[in-house]
This record gives sequence, C-alpha cells and structure tokens, in this order.
Amino acid sequence: MGGVIRLRIDFGYDGGAFYGWAKQPALRTVQGEFEAALAKILRLPADDPRLRLTVAGRTDTGVHALHQVCHLDVDDAAIAACVGHMDVEPVEALRRRLTRVLPSDIALHRVSVAPEGFDARFSALERTYVYRVCDAGTLRDPRMRGFVLRVDDALDVDAMNEAAAMTIGLHDFGSFATPNPGGTTIREVKYAHWDRVPVRPLVAAGPDAVSDAVAHYVTPTAESGLLCFTIVADAFARNMVRSLVGACLRVGTGRRDVAWFRGKMAEPKREGESGPCPPQGLTLEHVAYPPDDRLAARAEAIRAVRTL
Amino acid sequence: MGGVIRLRIDFGYDGGAFYGWAKQPALRTVQGEFEAALAKILRLPADDPRLRLTVAGRTDTGVHALHQVCHLDVDDAAIAACVGHMDVEPVEALRRRLTRVLPSDIALHRVSVAPEGFDARFSALERTYVYRVCDAGTLRDPRMRGFVLRVDDALDVDAMNEAAAMTIGLHDFGSFATPNPGGTTIREVKYAHWDRVPVRPLVAAGPDAVSDAVAHYVTPTAESGLLCFTIVADAFARNMVRSLVGACLRVGTGRRDVAWFRGKMAEPKREGESGPCPPQGLTLEHVAYPPDDRLAARAEAIRAVRTL
Repeated sequence: MGGVIRLRIDFGYDGGAFYGWAKQPALRTVQGEFEAALAKILRLPADDPRLRLTVAGRTDTGVHALHQVCHLDVDDAAIAACVGHMDVEPVEALRRRLTRVLPSDIALHRVSVAPEGFDARFSALERTYVYRVCDAGTLRDPRMRGFVLRVDDALDVDAMNEAAAMTIGLHDFGSFATPNPGGTTIREVKYAHWDRVPVRPLVAAGPDAVSDAVAHYVTPTAESGLLCFTIVADAFARNMVRSLVGACLRVGTGRRDVAWFRGKMAEPKREGESGPCPPQGLTLEHVAYPPDDRLAARAEAIRAVRTL
Repeated sequence: MGGVIRLRIDFGYDGGAFYGWAKQPALRTVQGEFEAALAKILRLPADDPRLRLTVAGRTDTGVHALHQVCHLDVDDAAIAACVGHMDVEPVEALRRRLTRVLPSDIALHRVSVAPEGFDARFSALERTYVYRVCDAGTLRDPRMRGFVLRVDDALDVDAMNEAAAMTIGLHDFGSFATPNPGGTTIREVKYAHWDRVPVRPLVAAGPDAVSDAVAHYVTPTAESGLLCFTIVADAFARNMVRSLVGACLRVGTGRRDVAWFRGKMAEPKREGESGPCPPQGLTLEHVAYPPDDRLAARAEAIRAVRTL
C-alpha cells in the first residue's frame, strides 16, 4: 500500500464541441474536461500536476475518437477512497464515478490497472484512423453530418487509391504535416486505402425475411454508400491524416493529378494546397499495443527515436 | 400553362434541434424552416397559405427522419422563375436553390413532379420506423448519441419480441397513444421486431485483407451491436412507436412481464406507465406508396376512414 498505480483508461468522444484533446486555458478540450472530472472524483485541485493525462493520440479541434487510450498515475489511497458505500473493487468504483461525472460527449469504455511498462503514448504500436466522406450520388444522412464530410463532386476512387498507395512505407510526410521544428515528419504508414461502404441491411433478419406477400422497406446501415479512407501508421505527424485526405480529394475531383501527389511525396515541403481538410470526417478508431511483455521495450525504443 | 403543379419532395432531417415537424409560432420546427426556405425561393410571404406543406409522417420533437415525404402545390410560373441564369429544367432549378437555402440539419434528397392523384399523407401505404438502443455490453459510440437511446440495463430481447409480436395485425393502440378525441387509435401493424445489429467490418476489403504479417484493426460499422426495433404500419397514432418501445423496454429490463404488455393490448387505456420513451432513438426510415395508377384510389379510401 501507499504506492502509485498506473491506470489505463479507454474512452471515446464526439470531437464536435471540443477544441481538440490538449488542454488550453479558457477553451473546452477533452483533456480539460477529463482532468476536471478526475479532480472532482479524486478530490484534488483541478490544476494538480498529478492529474496530467498522457494520451495515445492528440486529436485536433473537431476530430473524433472511438477508441482513445490514456494513462494516469494515481495514489492507491485515492483510488481506494472512491469505493465509499459501493460494494465493488476500487478501480471499478472509480470507473462508475467517472462515468457519472463525464459529459455526454465523452464515453468511458474501460478503466484498468495498466500492465508493467505500459505508456499510453510511447508503448503504442500503431494507430488506425478513418475519414468518412459522403460524395455525389450517396444519400445524405443528416444524422451523420457531424462525422462525415459532404462533398458535392463525384470522386475518382481509383485515382485516390493510386495516391494513397504511395504513402505506404517509411516516408517523410513533410508535405502533409504542420512543420515540427526540431522533430521529424518521417512516419511509417502500414495501410492506406479508400473503400466504398457496401449498402447492407441494418439487421440480418429484416422485414423482407417475413413470409408476407408485401416486401417491406429494408433499412440500410447508416454508413451505407459512404467513401471511407482507412489509414494505419506507427504514429502520425500533426495534421497528417487530414492533409493526406485533402490531397486525395484534390486528385479524386480531378483538380490535381496523381503525378502532383507523387511530387508532394518526393519533395516533402508544406504549402497551402496540401493543407488539412475539415476535421469532422476524421475519427481515431483504434490504438494497438504490443503484448504485455514487450510494452516497456517498445516505449524505450520510441522514446529514443522521438527525442532524437 | 398558368396551372398549378404538385411537387413531391423527398428529404430527411436530424430532429435534435427541432420541435418536431408541425409549424408552431416562435419554435424551430421542420415545417417552419422548410416553408421559410420555400418562401424565400418562390418569393412569397412566409405565412402565405400556398406554402403549406402536407407531410407523410408528422414527427414529434427530437424525432429524426431519413426518408420523409411531403407535397406542395405551386404555380408553374413560380417554378419557372427559379431557373434564372441556370441552364436546367425548372424543377431542378428549384431543387438546387432549395438545397442551398435549407439549414444543414435538413437534407433534400429529391424534388419531382408528383404523379396524378398523389397525396404525401393520404396516398401512403405504410411507414417504417426504427428505434435504436445501446444497452449494457454494447460499446458506446459518442458520435451516435444523438440518434441512439442509451440504456444501462441488459435487456431480455426474447421477451421484448414476445411483446412486439402481439402488436402485429389490426389493433386498438389506445394504451400506446396520446388520446385522439373524435379520432381512432386503431392501426394495422404489419411488422414489429427487435434485432441485434451484427458486428460487421465497415468496409469489405479492410486492412485484414492485406497480405501482411500484421493483423491490423478492423473498423466495425458505427451501428454494430445496437439493438433496433423496426416497426411497419399503415400509419401510427400519436406517440405510438415511442410508447411501444417504452413498454418493450419495461419488459426487457424485467420491470414488467409479457402478461402486463398483453393486458395493455387487450384493454386500450392510456396510463402513465405506457408513456413514450425519449425521442432521440427514433427515426422515420421510409414511407411507401402504391404504384402511380393506384395513388388516387388509396388517398380516397384513407381519407374516408380517417374522417369517419
């Protein structure tokens, strides 16, 4: 007892009403809201440095996360104090209190004691982002407008995939990232592809399964027909996914060709035309970690590279 | 020329920021916004009775529609005036202008000249509604909270389907509807079923299709794992779907049993416990019409029944 416990917290958020992850004075941010909720539960002042969360993927203003991960080191006495009158384990008690205190646009998925050597940021092996687009010819679902970009043009998906394929591998993404003085914009993209979401019935046994003379309407899934860009990388430079999506859309609409994109990859230089597209289409879908026995080694290796 | 043209307008909306469909003074409603947009385009005063839209399904505050239908009778001269400098047909010109003027939470799908005898309300054969629930054990997607009801309990879906099955056929839904003095609460339910949305990959060829040693994360569809109630009927009494869903949820959580639901069906009497559940989970997904040559006959028949 009397020690410090590292908690792993898995959660998601609708980024629409946040100025991104990172805490900023006087602006509503995910980190700010999360640390305020923890301060309340752990009875610490809101600006206590012990509340500082370390996150896997620092998302920008308006970007969403379905599976975000962070860690926090907490005195075990503070966790134990969460139990109160509940008949549950301390970490579960903290989870329940946190669920109640967090705003409705943050969803808490899980709170667990982190395995030895776990660091939410530096242990991560890869991040998966998806960018959703509703292009010409796809039904506009007004309920989805907060996480789908609407584009009026018809898009050339094959050309977009020619561009996307060039990003795979270890490259300097300097054309597609906010300059990072003293740091690198070299990243390893493991997968990058545009796909059309198939139009599928929402439920397996829909009304058409009824042995009825009338063929009722079959409700499709809400994402039916959307165009989705899935990208997996070890990590992403600032604004990288949205800048790559913006460039792919330029190619898809024919405003630029694939050779232009190739040039951007060959000569990593930021300029206006390769800037980021709107944030609402983007969601951090997943962060992958190595098996428990390799967490510490991974964190060591990454920390060495990033602080070069 | 100089005649009146009936337009059929297909559209959808996110009901979250509307006080329902029906126009009300000083409140933001779908009808109010729609008629204001039409007034602007057709250069008529906002309260001109010629702008009055007839809708297929009058949704309540907070209820969404993916495929709503309304009709409007317009002087063909007013439609022709929409063309202006555009090189398109008058109805297409009106559609383009309307798309630009409507707020972002209303999506215009289509504007067409209605076939002879078409009445958006009275010609309709059946309406399909879906109510979406995120219950215990299903991942909470914060992006979807505007159109999914969150329930903390684990639900007995079999019991809920036992109840749902009792609604099929011609019944008096007086237990599940806001009283309608001088009208009937008898409706014909054609389909009613609770289904778990299967967990499926968002795109067919996801990262796992790559011949790569690493198995990347496969993004599921956003509705994966939700519990959905699909109900199809000729028409619905006021608050009927949400009241039925509320009653099914009482059965699903075990607070009430199937026999209680059977009693509600047998004795059509409104009381507190069979009131509506929250609106955000509900979407009008579809309105079906008969073939063009039977539109007028259908409207005649329905008008006769409803005004009995």
